[in-house]
Order: sequence, then structure tokens, then C-alpha cells
Amino acid sequence: MPSKARKWRTLDNERVYSTPIFDLHKRKSVHPRRGERHFYILDVPAWVNIIPVTPEGEVVMVKQYRHGISDFTLEIPGGMVDPEDPNPAHAARREMNEETGFDSETIIELGWVNPNPAIQPNICYSFFAPNVREIGDKHSNPDGSEETEVTVVPLDSIKDLIASGKISHALVIAAFSFFHVYNPPPRKHRRK
Amino acid sequence: MPSKARKWRTLDNERVYSTPIFDLHKRKSVHPRRGERHFYILDVPAWVNIIPVTPEGEVVMVKQYRHGISDFTLEIPGGMVDPEDPNPAHAARREMNEETGFDSETIIELGWVNPNPAIQPNICYSFFAPNVREIGDKHSNPDGSEETEVTVVPLDSIKDLIASGKISHALVIAAFSFFHVYNPPPRKHRRK
Repeated sequence: MPSKARKWRTLDNERVYSTPIFDLHKRKSVHPRRGERHFYILDVPAWVNIIPVTPEGEVVMVKQYRHGISDFTLEIPGGMVDPEDPNPAHAARREMNEETGFDSETIIELGWVNPNPAIQPNICYSFFAPNVREIGDKHSNPDGSEETEVTVVPLDSIKDLIASGKISHALVIAAFSFFHVYNPPPRKHRRK
Repeated sequence: MPSKARKWRTLDNERVYSTPIFDLHKRKSVHPRRGERHFYILDVPAWVNIIPVTPEGEVVMVKQYRHGISDFTLEIPGGMVDPEDPNPAHAARREMNEETGFDSETIIELGWVNPNPAIQPNICYSFFAPNVREIGDKHSNPDGSEETEVTVVPLDSIKDLIASGKISHALVIAAFSFFHVYNPPPRKHRRK
């Protein structure tokens, strides 16, 4: 990688706008050869998502209205790591419980990504929950602004759903790509 | 998918902050059961990225300083679709030329994702360029604020680089996941 001398150093940071889910920061940085410039950063916490698979080989997914694209998406459970979560695995299990009502005692880390390293500092951690069982109703949209529906999809159909664009969320695809090819979980936890 | 009645309808949209690479919008939407609420959207154009592979089976990649994570990343070429680009494939080829100095007459679409459907309306299209050749120097950072270095990496090593976190950009991993498993290009264009 390039030498340390070519990194930028932060001189100043100002929060220029706040929203309920992120703050927008304007950062002044300096580079030995390029001088001082401003960059814009979204201050967001760590994110998690999780692939819950039933003993019958079905993935428990969530249909969710997404305001960015003004349409519904087909996703795995996920969300933000809250300050109360002791670690990302706990956050992923909590989101799975809240969004689907399913649970598993086994939570396996698949990998992590930078959702957008150009403007976000955060990491998204992906997990796999084998042999999930329904333990209760999903929470009924506690914040009142989420429009979601739980649906189960055969694990065997996921590759086609991604190839056809029916699963389109980049971070959901990243999670499945770890599962399918880059870091598949131990064979004893997998079903074809 | 849920019935149309459960979609949200936009009542008002206000640009509350502008940066050189995106605008922040505050949108007021209404839902038949949930009433009126505000949502925050990053107004960003379509993005592209592209996997350039040499006849020798090496991927032409870019080491780049990313201000979101305050560190260097290992990425494939990519960027925004400019208003002058007639289509995303043209934008991807242009970014490859500009960032690496490599070119190919064949540009194959691998797939597309929503980078962040919760807060962004845009799509990122991924492409594959087989048999790339060096046609000239990369442009010398025209905007003066990018710190980049071209590097070639054996295609065979990409899976390990993703598994180990050395390639961490979610949209780069999405591109490779189409290439490796979800929509691999025709065999005649691939080298093992």
C-alpha cells in the first residue's frame, strides 16, 4: 500500500446536519502534497445482517418498504448495532428476533464489509443462523414507520433471486456471497 | 409483495444540504395507516464498477485513499455515471481508462445492486472487461484530491482477498460475487 506519508490528516470536523439515522459531517483534511480540502462523511454506527435458515432449508426473509428506492425489497434481517448491544453478533440476533420472530442459539460470523468507504466510516458484519425456530411474533414495528412482512424462501433459490435482481440490496448480496463462496460455514451447519 | 395500498406517497421534498458528490433531501411522505413522516434521502447518481482482467489472468485494481474509513482500499475501477455518459457500460469503460490506463473492446454486464435502498435511490452496475490491454497512462488525478495507485492482482487470489478482508468494499465484493457465482460471464471470456 502507499506509504504513510500519503495519508490525509484531519484538521477539523463539523457536524453540518443531523437526521434520526445519521449525521452529516464536513471534514477539513490536509495532505502533504495536495494541501487542505473538505470532505463529507456520513456518521453512521456499525451495521449487521444475518441469514436465518430453518431446519427445512428455508431462509427467513423480510419484505420491507425502502424510502431510498421508493419500493419494497426482499432482504435478510438486519439493522444498526445499538449502544446496548455487547457485540455485533448480539445485534444481529436481536434484529432477527425483532424482525422475524425466529431465533437460533448458534450465530456464526460470515464476514464484514465497508458499505461505502468513500463517505461512511462504518462496517457491516454478516452472520449465519442455522436451524432457526419460530419463538414468537415479530415485534409490531415498534417505531411505527417500518412496513415489513416476513417471508420464507428456499435457500436453493437464493442464487437465482440475486441473478435476476429480485434480491438487490448490496449488503444482503455481500452476506450471501460470503455464505456461498468466500467464507462458507462449516458443512455440518449447511444444507444444500 | 405487499399490496400497493401499503406504499408511501411523497408529499414534499426539500434539499436541506448540498455537497460536491451528493445532496441531502428531507422528504415528507404519507401512508394510509401510518400518517405523515419525514425521511432523509441522499440524492446520488447511478454508480458503476468494472473488473478488468488481462490476458494473463490478472485483475487491474486501484489502491485508493478513502476518506470515509480514513484508510486505503483495494478496489476495482469505478465511479459515477456522468450526464455525458450515454449508458452505464460507457461510464464503466471510461472510469477504467481514466483510473488504470487499461482498455478492452468487450464490456460485459454482470449485474446491478442497490447500494443502500434505505437512503439512496441509485443503482450500481457491475461490468467485466476481458483481455484488457494498457493503452496509455492513467489520468493524473484530474480533480487533485484522489490518491490512487494501480496494481495487478491474480484473479485466482481474489476469493482469498475477500475472505481475509483485504478487499472490503461492499460494491466491489458484489461485482466479484456476480462474476464468481451469481452471473458468471461466458466461459470463452474467463480464465480460471
